[in-house]
Amino acid sequence: MAEEDSPRKATIVVFSGSLDKVMGAFIIATTCAAMGLQTTMFFTFWGLSALKKGPSSATCKRNWMQKMLGMMLPKKAADLPLSQLNMAGMGSKMLKQIMAQKKMASLPELIEMARDLDVRMIACQMSMDAMGICKEELLDGVEVGGAATYVGEAKDAQINLFIS
Amino acid sequence: MAEEDSPRKATIVVFSGSLDKVMGAFIIATTCAAMGLQTTMFFTFWGLSALKKGPSSATCKRNWMQKMLGMMLPKKAADLPLSQLNMAGMGSKMLKQIMAQKKMASLPELIEMARDLDVRMIACQMSMDAMGICKEELLDGVEVGGAATYVGEAKDAQINLFIS
Amino acid sequence: MAEEDSPRKATIVVFSGSLDKVMGAFIIATTCAAMGLQTTMFFTFWGLSALKKGPSSATCKRNWMQKMLGMMLPKKAADLPLSQLNMAGMGSKMLKQIMAQKKMASLPELIEMARDLDVRMIACQMSMDAMGICKEELLDGVEVGGAATYVGEAKDAQINLFIS
Repeated sequence: MAEEDSPRKATIVVFSGSLDKVMGAFIIATTCAAMGLQTTMFFTFWGLSALKKGPSSATCKRNWMQKMLGMMLPKKAADLPLSQLNMAGMGSKMLKQIMAQKKMASLPELIEMARDLDVRMIACQMSMDAMGICKEELLDGVEVGGAATYVGEAKDAQINLFIS
Repeated sequence: MAEEDSPRKATIVVFSGSLDKVMGAFIIATTCAAMGLQTTMFFTFWGLSALKKGPSSATCKRNWMQKMLGMMLPKKAADLPLSQLNMAGMGSKMLKQIMAQKKMASLPELIEMARDLDVRMIACQMSMDAMGICKEELLDGVEVGGAATYVGEAKDAQINLFIS
Repeated sequence: MAEEDSPRKATIVVFSGSLDKVMGAFIIATTCAAMGLQTTMFFTFWGLSALKKGPSSATCKRNWMQKMLGMMLPKKAADLPLSQLNMAGMGSKMLKQIMAQKKMASLPELIEMARDLDVRMIACQMSMDAMGICKEELLDGVEVGGAATYVGEAKDAQINLFIS
């Protein structure tokens, strides 16, 4: 009974930076939130690309390896590639076209929905440090946290997923 | 105590269409079911390939992009590639050979076992719409559902996994 | 209340053999253990590479397919490639360099930390049989178990993740 009274929670670790997997993460997250679960998404490693606003900040300090990495990775959610059949971007373009025809939400729309539904989005501090990504480069409202923040949420959640 | 009385549940999202990962999903699912957990597998995106019966249906309507996608994707569980070292099918053929020598169950056998153990298999409606896959192309007994069906099961389950 | 009294548990299936994903698994596992959760990692398929000690044993029997597989797979945790941007090892070398500069723990150090924190590491028997890996080739202290061992732990755990 105690369990019924306390709010139900869900957490999703977004480790992947592929369009298809990140969309899967947001579809589950927004469904969880719409069904009344307090939902937290924790973005780490390649997944951080989904939270980037776009142009990189000139004031963010990076060494040459991090600069190179920044050039190779997507600059924002709309640029993410497919995990398979990406075919130099043609695959992800086709997927987006099909989804638009079927009136399905795009990734930027899903992110907006997640925000409206109060889904917490946390960027992994350690990954930001390793990859050379600064807070001002991330979408507004994104929090920054560590593995302990994640485990603190997950240990009381009913649904915990890791999307790699 | 209430928790002890209610049946224990497990859910597995199968997002991947790789032989090795889908086999992992079915090995865990059949073990869960054999150990008394009500087990539900939710197949989405690339994972749908594992549920396809074989030849595609002529009455299933598809636009040209979906037709192209259908040609590029595996036609049935037995055709799935490995996620690594597939080497144009040689890798998956070798894995199947080794497993047969060791008397391990093949993927089609694992699917059959899952059925016998009453594992629920749900195909994601939205992925079917996006990829142009019709219900008559899926194995008999497969249900069709949405993200809300999945979250409804997962929020009361002890084990929830996402296999990407 | 019963739930509060019994120790909290976490399980992580490590299916992937990529440096980035295995590091993610160990960072979460050590954090769980440091926060008081009884933590079990279950290594299967490609993930077994992370537990290999190094040189393969001459007394371990392998057929020619397993020998070939052994030659293609990493020999120990320090040899794991990145899941993306590995660029023939340059990517993983650069990641390790950045992490050393930032004073972050390397994978071998994380494995050592996991041991010190009493994280249980279980190698999947069926994967070992299929891939031709013998117990003496795995790090000391690693247990061997099957899917039932895993589900037995996971069904009572608060956090269950599958890292593929």
